[in-house]
Amino acid sequence: MVGVEGSAQLDVLQTVIAISFLVLLGRILGTVFARFKLPEVIGEVTAGIILGPFALGGIIMLIDRPLVELNELMLAFAEIGGIIILFSAGLEFTFHDLRKAGLPAAVVGTAGVILPMLGGYYTAILFGFDWTVALLVGATLTATSIAVTVRVLEELRRQKSVEGNVLVNAAMIDDVLGLTVLSIATSVVVAGRIPVITDIAVVTAQSIAVWFALLVGSVFFLPRIVHVIGRLHGKGTTEAVSTASAFGIAAAAGSFGLSPIVGAFAAGMGLAESRPIHQIREFIGKLKILFGPLFFAIIGTYIDPRSVFGLDIFFFVVLAAVAIVSKVAGCGIPAALLLKDRSKGLKIGYGMVSRGEVGFIIAGIALSRGIFTQAVYSEIVLIIMITTLLSPILLRRAYSKSAPEEEDKAQQ
Amino acid sequence: MVGVEGSAQLDVLQTVIAISFLVLLGRILGTVFARFKLPEVIGEVTAGIILGPFALGGIIMLIDRPLVELNELMLAFAEIGGIIILFSAGLEFTFHDLRKAGLPAAVVGTAGVILPMLGGYYTAILFGFDWTVALLVGATLTATSIAVTVRVLEELRRQKSVEGNVLVNAAMIDDVLGLTVLSIATSVVVAGRIPVITDIAVVTAQSIAVWFALLVGSVFFLPRIVHVIGRLHGKGTTEAVSTASAFGIAAAAGSFGLSPIVGAFAAGMGLAESRPIHQIREFIGKLKILFGPLFFAIIGTYIDPRSVFGLDIFFFVVLAAVAIVSKVAGCGIPAALLLKDRSKGLKIGYGMVSRGEVGFIIAGIALSRGIFTQAVYSEIVLIIMITTLLSPILLRRAYSKSAPEEEDKAQQ
Repeated sequence: MVGVEGSAQLDVLQTVIAISFLVLLGRILGTVFARFKLPEVIGEVTAGIILGPFALGGIIMLIDRPLVELNELMLAFAEIGGIIILFSAGLEFTFHDLRKAGLPAAVVGTAGVILPMLGGYYTAILFGFDWTVALLVGATLTATSIAVTVRVLEELRRQKSVEGNVLVNAAMIDDVLGLTVLSIATSVVVAGRIPVITDIAVVTAQSIAVWFALLVGSVFFLPRIVHVIGRLHGKGTTEAVSTASAFGIAAAAGSFGLSPIVGAFAAGMGLAESRPIHQIREFIGKLKILFGPLFFAIIGTYIDPRSVFGLDIFFFVVLAAVAIVSKVAGCGIPAALLLKDRSKGLKIGYGMVSRGEVGFIIAGIALSRGIFTQAVYSEIVLIIMITTLLSPILLRRAYSKSAPEEEDKAQQ
Repeated sequence: MVGVEGSAQLDVLQTVIAISFLVLLGRILGTVFARFKLPEVIGEVTAGIILGPFALGGIIMLIDRPLVELNELMLAFAEIGGIIILFSAGLEFTFHDLRKAGLPAAVVGTAGVILPMLGGYYTAILFGFDWTVALLVGATLTATSIAVTVRVLEELRRQKSVEGNVLVNAAMIDDVLGLTVLSIATSVVVAGRIPVITDIAVVTAQSIAVWFALLVGSVFFLPRIVHVIGRLHGKGTTEAVSTASAFGIAAAAGSFGLSPIVGAFAAGMGLAESRPIHQIREFIGKLKILFGPLFFAIIGTYIDPRSVFGLDIFFFVVLAAVAIVSKVAGCGIPAALLLKDRSKGLKIGYGMVSRGEVGFIIAGIALSRGIFTQAVYSEIVLIIMITTLLSPILLRRAYSKSAPEEEDKAQQ
């Protein structure tokens, strides 16, 4: 069982060593990137590209096998990593937050999902891709990375500003919508025919309804379960019940045809208002030290660095431009109109440009289902990385330009 | 990749849900057992028996599959759990501790390994078992559980007493020897012939030499690597490098034909004197919240409760008696002679009776290699559980009897 030298057992050790190296180089590059004010997540994906089976990981041999192989166990860890990341994201948002996010955030978040979705879809169609590919290209461009957005705002000390508040809440809403888009896109692709608009409406309504039911269920039941088990005052029971919640609701989402990570996010939101939330956050934070870099590094391992030379550069450049412009316009214009402030609207648009974990997850699913080719996958992952690099730069420039003006207003 | 509804992906979710339930019930029963002053680990194994595929876990259905299935992913987690538990045990002992443990601990530890080994071996032979089975029956009885011993001594506030110091160090030495016995036993079984005494001597010498080389290598290199990477001051780099060390040295041990967990223990000892040891212990402690109960619960899942009715009661009772008496005599007599105190010697003997993680691991390996039948495995696991329950009771009684006498001495 907990074995010694058998071949099946050695697989586990090899995989775990590969994981250790991915996590270690991921954290080292993440730290180096952070030193240069670049998002750590880019360092972690880069570690995966470097150690992937297409690069060093396929060359360095460990005894008789390549250092990094993408076997089932590795994929299981990636899936667990995705669940932990989204669960952790959910822990930061209460149901209350979602309700009070208000009209501006809802409009900005929704418009910021629709425009990139349509932009990605039609760009791909224009370049002759199949509609299934186009649908998932669109889906990968929908969700803003909350993590990057929040970190940049914190660095600029603007998270409590009007536009900062709209930004964070819109990013949260567009995560939920992006995950809904993922659920819809995969079920439509499984159905295997071009959807008519009524189908989309029905599937969208169903997905949102199921997700909302899961969310309300999580918000209602999970804190009570945690509370009852917490009365035992047992060592580790709260941690055990919170991970059980994450995986349980993830599996429930999966069984209803949604993506499991949507369920993990709902479970996180459900526990966000539970009493031992600090203890849960601390514990999940420790798990994320391993599973976060691992997840993003595994995203990188799927990129064949040589495929960069074979990229359809024209498609790549156009899609990257669409990814950026559709978010700036899709979020910036409604924000400017609602807040009646062009400068704040533009900042919100810039802040929403960064894509991240949800985009990576969708691209990974599309690759694993054979919808994306290796080339399309690499292009999408690189575009996501570019948006993640660009968004903080745009946002910083916008603030440094408008800073005197802002201060004027503050003094009035 | 980080998938949705595919069958391979749902496996991951099902397994992770099974794991969540095992950990959760393990922690709950562990807490309940602790409330009754019983070892928590027994509660965790009991959770595994209850939720195992032979009991509730095979009856409760999750969608279309039993709740708990012992698939490859589950076994991978068990193996990772074993590595984390032994790594964590190693983190508590420095190389310095091992050197200063001194003659009494070394003699007590060694005698306490040899007697149960021979007792177990000849009892099994006497009952007509094959010599390979007998060898591993002996091996499972060798190692005292440090965890249980330390906890009981702490409860009695005797961990700093003369006999407490000998107890803890002897338990550590017998863990090392027990793991060496495991390595020897498995390589002898792989060789497939009854060993002659010179073979045993050669294999023992080789195993100890390789393990010592790994230990010295870990003590020398690991703190330096941790130190260099620590200079980055990166978030999570120390945690990443410590897990990489654990799995790396575990794999190195595996590639030399030793058990990987022996390597994990050496890696832990290597890091025990590194600068960020508190940070590493805290991190591994959090991982152990999940992996500890999981590991012990999985041990329990292999027990078929119905097999208890089919137990060879006579063999069971005799072997249990041998397991208890051989430790009390093997450790108690040399301890009494060396410390020139019969009462202290007896306490050390009682304290060493509890077996634990190492015994469970050896039993698991023997089951997975087809050396133990289901019945023998169940008997061994139950005997280990009995010793773990009995040792604290014997030790508490010995202290409560001798308490006045001890106090007399303290007053002189």
